[in-house]
Amino acid sequence: MAGNSFGTLFKITTFGESHGAAIGVVIDGCPPNVMLDVEFIQKQLSRRRPGQSTLTTQRNEEDKPEILSGLYEGKTTGAPLTIITRNKDQRPSDYDKLKDVYRPSHADFTYDAKYGIRDHRGSGRASARETAARVMAGAVAQQILTQKGIKISAFVQQVGNIAIPSESFPVDYVMIESNAIRCPDKATAEKMIALIEQTKKEGDTLGGIISTTIQNVPPGLGEPVFDKLHAQLGKAMLSINAVKGFEIGSGFVGAALKGSQQNDRFVKDTNGEIKTATNNSGGIQGGISNGMDITFNVAFKPVSTLMMKQQTTDAGGNDATIMPGGRHDVCVLPRAVPIVEAMAALVILDFYLLQKAVEL
Amino acid sequence: MAGNSFGTLFKITTFGESHGAAIGVVIDGCPPNVMLDVEFIQKQLSRRRPGQSTLTTQRNEEDKPEILSGLYEGKTTGAPLTIITRNKDQRPSDYDKLKDVYRPSHADFTYDAKYGIRDHRGSGRASARETAARVMAGAVAQQILTQKGIKISAFVQQVGNIAIPSESFPVDYVMIESNAIRCPDKATAEKMIALIEQTKKEGDTLGGIISTTIQNVPPGLGEPVFDKLHAQLGKAMLSINAVKGFEIGSGFVGAALKGSQQNDRFVKDTNGEIKTATNNSGGIQGGISNGMDITFNVAFKPVSTLMMKQQTTDAGGNDATIMPGGRHDVCVLPRAVPIVEAMAALVILDFYLLQKAVEL
Amino acid sequence: MAGNSFGTLFKITTFGESHGAAIGVVIDGCPPNVMLDVEFIQKQLSRRRPGQSTLTTQRNEEDKPEILSGLYEGKTTGAPLTIITRNKDQRPSDYDKLKDVYRPSHADFTYDAKYGIRDHRGSGRASARETAARVMAGAVAQQILTQKGIKISAFVQQVGNIAIPSESFPVDYVMIESNAIRCPDKATAEKMIALIEQTKKEGDTLGGIISTTIQNVPPGLGEPVFDKLHAQLGKAMLSINAVKGFEIGSGFVGAALKGSQQNDRFVKDTNGEIKTATNNSGGIQGGISNGMDITFNVAFKPVSTLMMKQQTTDAGGNDATIMPGGRHDVCVLPRAVPIVEAMAALVILDFYLLQKAVEL
Amino acid sequence: MAGNSFGTLFKITTFGESHGAAIGVVIDGCPPNVMLDVEFIQKQLSRRRPGQSTLTTQRNEEDKPEILSGLYEGKTTGAPLTIITRNKDQRPSDYDKLKDVYRPSHADFTYDAKYGIRDHRGSGRASARETAARVMAGAVAQQILTQKGIKISAFVQQVGNIAIPSESFPVDYVMIESNAIRCPDKATAEKMIALIEQTKKEGDTLGGIISTTIQNVPPGLGEPVFDKLHAQLGKAMLSINAVKGFEIGSGFVGAALKGSQQNDRFVKDTNGEIKTATNNSGGIQGGISNGMDITFNVAFKPVSTLMMKQQTTDAGGNDATIMPGGRHDVCVLPRAVPIVEAMAALVILDFYLLQKAVEL
Repeated sequence: MAGNSFGTLFKITTFGESHGAAIGVVIDGCPPNVMLDVEFIQKQLSRRRPGQSTLTTQRNEEDKPEILSGLYEGKTTGAPLTIITRNKDQRPSDYDKLKDVYRPSHADFTYDAKYGIRDHRGSGRASARETAARVMAGAVAQQILTQKGIKISAFVQQVGNIAIPSESFPVDYVMIESNAIRCPDKATAEKMIALIEQTKKEGDTLGGIISTTIQNVPPGLGEPVFDKLHAQLGKAMLSINAVKGFEIGSGFVGAALKGSQQNDRFVKDTNGEIKTATNNSGGIQGGISNGMDITFNVAFKPVSTLMMKQQTTDAGGNDATIMPGGRHDVCVLPRAVPIVEAMAALVILDFYLLQKAVEL
Repeated sequence: MAGNSFGTLFKITTFGESHGAAIGVVIDGCPPNVMLDVEFIQKQLSRRRPGQSTLTTQRNEEDKPEILSGLYEGKTTGAPLTIITRNKDQRPSDYDKLKDVYRPSHADFTYDAKYGIRDHRGSGRASARETAARVMAGAVAQQILTQKGIKISAFVQQVGNIAIPSESFPVDYVMIESNAIRCPDKATAEKMIALIEQTKKEGDTLGGIISTTIQNVPPGLGEPVFDKLHAQLGKAMLSINAVKGFEIGSGFVGAALKGSQQNDRFVKDTNGEIKTATNNSGGIQGGISNGMDITFNVAFKPVSTLMMKQQTTDAGGNDATIMPGGRHDVCVLPRAVPIVEAMAALVILDFYLLQKAVEL
Repeated sequence: MAGNSFGTLFKITTFGESHGAAIGVVIDGCPPNVMLDVEFIQKQLSRRRPGQSTLTTQRNEEDKPEILSGLYEGKTTGAPLTIITRNKDQRPSDYDKLKDVYRPSHADFTYDAKYGIRDHRGSGRASARETAARVMAGAVAQQILTQKGIKISAFVQQVGNIAIPSESFPVDYVMIESNAIRCPDKATAEKMIALIEQTKKEGDTLGGIISTTIQNVPPGLGEPVFDKLHAQLGKAMLSINAVKGFEIGSGFVGAALKGSQQNDRFVKDTNGEIKTATNNSGGIQGGISNGMDITFNVAFKPVSTLMMKQQTTDAGGNDATIMPGGRHDVCVLPRAVPIVEAMAALVILDFYLLQKAVEL
Repeated sequence: MAGNSFGTLFKITTFGESHGAAIGVVIDGCPPNVMLDVEFIQKQLSRRRPGQSTLTTQRNEEDKPEILSGLYEGKTTGAPLTIITRNKDQRPSDYDKLKDVYRPSHADFTYDAKYGIRDHRGSGRASARETAARVMAGAVAQQILTQKGIKISAFVQQVGNIAIPSESFPVDYVMIESNAIRCPDKATAEKMIALIEQTKKEGDTLGGIISTTIQNVPPGLGEPVFDKLHAQLGKAMLSINAVKGFEIGSGFVGAALKGSQQNDRFVKDTNGEIKTATNNSGGIQGGISNGMDITFNVAFKPVSTLMMKQQTTDAGGNDATIMPGGRHDVCVLPRAVPIVEAMAALVILDFYLLQKAVEL
């Protein structure tokens, strides 16, 4: 566990720093004979890409996937599938003045503490640019899941203190891409965008919550007792930059309910299949999918880089003031939607393959 | 990843069903020459044990740890340390009528779906009795952490809709064991106990939130990018029965804050060490401990077994009504405190050992 | 990698010392719904058991398998399957005089060097008694493989300088159990037995070679590039006590051949299947099974405990003389046959499950 | 275990096909702050490189290491260290006629059987070109080991039926690079070269044996019971293309010895350290290094591609005749020397780091 791999059978290893030559991923265990849709990888990368709208950072990365290995005549071969995207719009000098300063709520101090050395340019390995590699790998996993009928829909449910009101649920996943903030509720989306623009003027930043639904997951996925499906989903989400919380189904709200309110009783549906009448379980019981929609929320803290002066210290503990240059997001939520989808896809596909293995 | 192991260097594998011969754990990678305090293992087991107070289930397990291997003259040898606790107060016949019924929000349906076979007695492997094994392993890890000065304090922060009010923070960890509910705030504890007693009369159940603080963790623990310290802590907690949510530091509340409110600026403390002025990060930045207290919350859903009639289906999808016998908790929170501590200890010790490995 | 687990999907963890309470194994990932034949586990254990003939040590262990978890109504449940065998005929005082002496070619010195502590009684964890746990786990794996038509036959091919002559090949696997030495060639078996009896009189010991054939392995098992089928088989065999060498197919002899002698050309057999005309590859090409018999040899050094005086040092480096008491084998080869079979079964089943996972 | 990763704490993942864009490796877990000597990586790559002498294939790869991530101002950062070498001298059309033919003793048939798809150009992933990635990773590991005083020396001990005579031992490692065959015994080297040249004229090929000595390994490395030091070394070596056998210390020869001949008695050396008088154990006892030289042999089968006509079948099972073009080695042994060193370095460093972790 050196920390840069994720998954057991569909196992990814990411590499690369924000201002190095490239960001990339090796997928080991990709099933062979999958006709790869590179356009879909590009599409997901573009949804994560900076500069895609006025709401996001203007750093302008082309973010084009380049396949180094594992593909033959358009199909996966079972060999490691390596995909990189080169870093182009680098302005490392933007970061020179930050070399010895510990930015508040960044990973500068902790990387120094852990490694005794730090690539300060654009946060190096700690940069959210690393997630481009996850998105590329996730886009491969999603293609395989799509063939199995499994569909992952993530959307922005809250930005700052603006959230989709409960009466707007269930939302229409088709509407997610209808606006720049990736919130399927139009009225809420407009308020979120207004909040972001206002906050940008203040030089401040915002966090929020992304909600995800995974449809058509077959019952039986997940590996109790430690590798429960929601435990691994939780780890996957918490490993994304800026994530501070994860909840499955009724989550933190459910902690205040009575059992008689929380319990999902079983019923036979019109197809004669056993379902639950409610879904407070979020599609998972005992760590195993039950065939209902898998639903979870992910909480993101506000962006740490502010466009205002902040007090902090340098590496020697001396007082320092920072006023970042560079190009930064006010709110990463819309760009984080494909990252959440990618991590969800990696988890679901891995458990899907694991379950196939033991069905003698 | 067959699911019953946790950790990389301090790796545990648990085994055993609720109504089988024993529950146990093999610890592989326990450092040698640790003088083991078996009384402490017993103490932690007793804190998790059913029947310890009128608030908990009256199933009466002695829960005595028995060491099968790995100990020589009281010290660990570096060989696998195996600890079991035998199941004694079994009444499997209590469960006969549940053999073919899917209890709401239990793992009956999903175990059938996954494995095609199910030990229905006391939920078999899905029983929370499995956590006794975690507590025994955690108690070993805690002893090693204690030698390093690291201290883990978990307590009940919320039961149903009763929570410690914000003005009562910081709480005094010494008070955790002063009442049966393990809530360090006396007034809140009394309200929680009253709520539990009232809910018991209704045949209903409760969930809640456990808060944890880990003190004196050295900076540098955690393995970005996937095995971030809080990602692994999150997985550990979400793998505990009935857990539906995890948040680190400011968590879900922080998602609504502005960056200027959230950011933890660095300061030099009176010892000349670099600390943060606030701790919204919860002691972890970029997935690595920063030397501040690690703080997180874990949300538990209410107990699924109600002392009232519930509608559901049997394995054939036919309508069924259940009215459980057996002995069950109204609220597992007080018993879950040592489980949360155990899982936290396993995570911290594993990262501690991993960090030692790479410091050349 | 703390060293006491083996396998990925069918993963075993062994525990226990020679003179502790028990030797055991947890199997995590055993497919569910396997009707377990406990008699077969017993049979394999008895083949490994000391005291089974006058050729082996007279330590008299009953070696009865006891199942602690994972079985329900005779079938595996998918939960961890734990099997122990208790240690009964312990005479730890036999070892008291060895407490501080480093026996030649034993693990006394290295366990002290590594762990700084050592359970000297019967070699503790370093004892070949640990392999009883492997045999129990292997016997479970073998049952599943048998259902798939896969058959593993190991036999003693060489003891000391007595080997089955080349003209006796192919041997008849049915004859393996026809004598105490487990050599299917009667004339050679008699010479081996005579050599063992003679060597016993001298107080000396013998090693030898075990040959194995695995029939009906489907093409496609093995995971290049590092987890090649023969690489994992090699590791499995080299992890057995006293093993010093492993070779697949033509092995060391093949190193002296020309390519034109070594190459296995492909042919269509009478069933229309593609086979190889010869089998110098030993059933594996490029690390993947090709459907031919898998054949390999395992070299065992002679037993380290001699019934004669030996010079060595104690832990302080002072000269010491040892003259072991205790009960020891002159030659472990016949008892090692089921251990080799067990390790082979664990490897093949694990790769079998891994291959199922990626066949979409 | 998808097969393309090796190691636990110093973990490598290789990727790339013979005729794809590049061959590469990601090292996850490289300790930070190692000043990397890129020239040494280049030197080891050049020792493995084709076309380095008239004895090896004339495929002319520049084989220049290119570092994509993990290095900052010349030092490792603890982030994944990614090194690639681009494929340049590709002539995939050389392989067109082999597209549907199964070359004897190659991996064509088994890759088809396993994956159902095969990149036939230059054997794709099954090509020994993959070992360039291992050599680059191994060269990083070797630099760290060198700082610890650990020295790995591999040399060609046998080619075909020509072996260094026993009276020439111990050999002088300084002489290994004194000739193109990397055999430190001058007279034997000349015979080997003559044999290779003669065999080349015949269109035939040769195998052989590489011997390795690792000096100054501290006592205590290796993780019993499954991850014994020699078991992991064996797996590492058996995973190299064309390897058919591995033996540690006295190996297969030792199987014919008596215990009284084999046993290594302990003695105090002139520095007061405990050593063994002989080294039949090959520096490892009970799976743990004992501080003596680690010595092992690796058997390579002859190269499968012959410069003569061979009978075989195509993918449909029809008779086929092949007469390879392309550029191929008669004997890979000299080029395999740095590969063996690399794999040895990866194993030793990983165990070195693992041992540091548990020394509290």
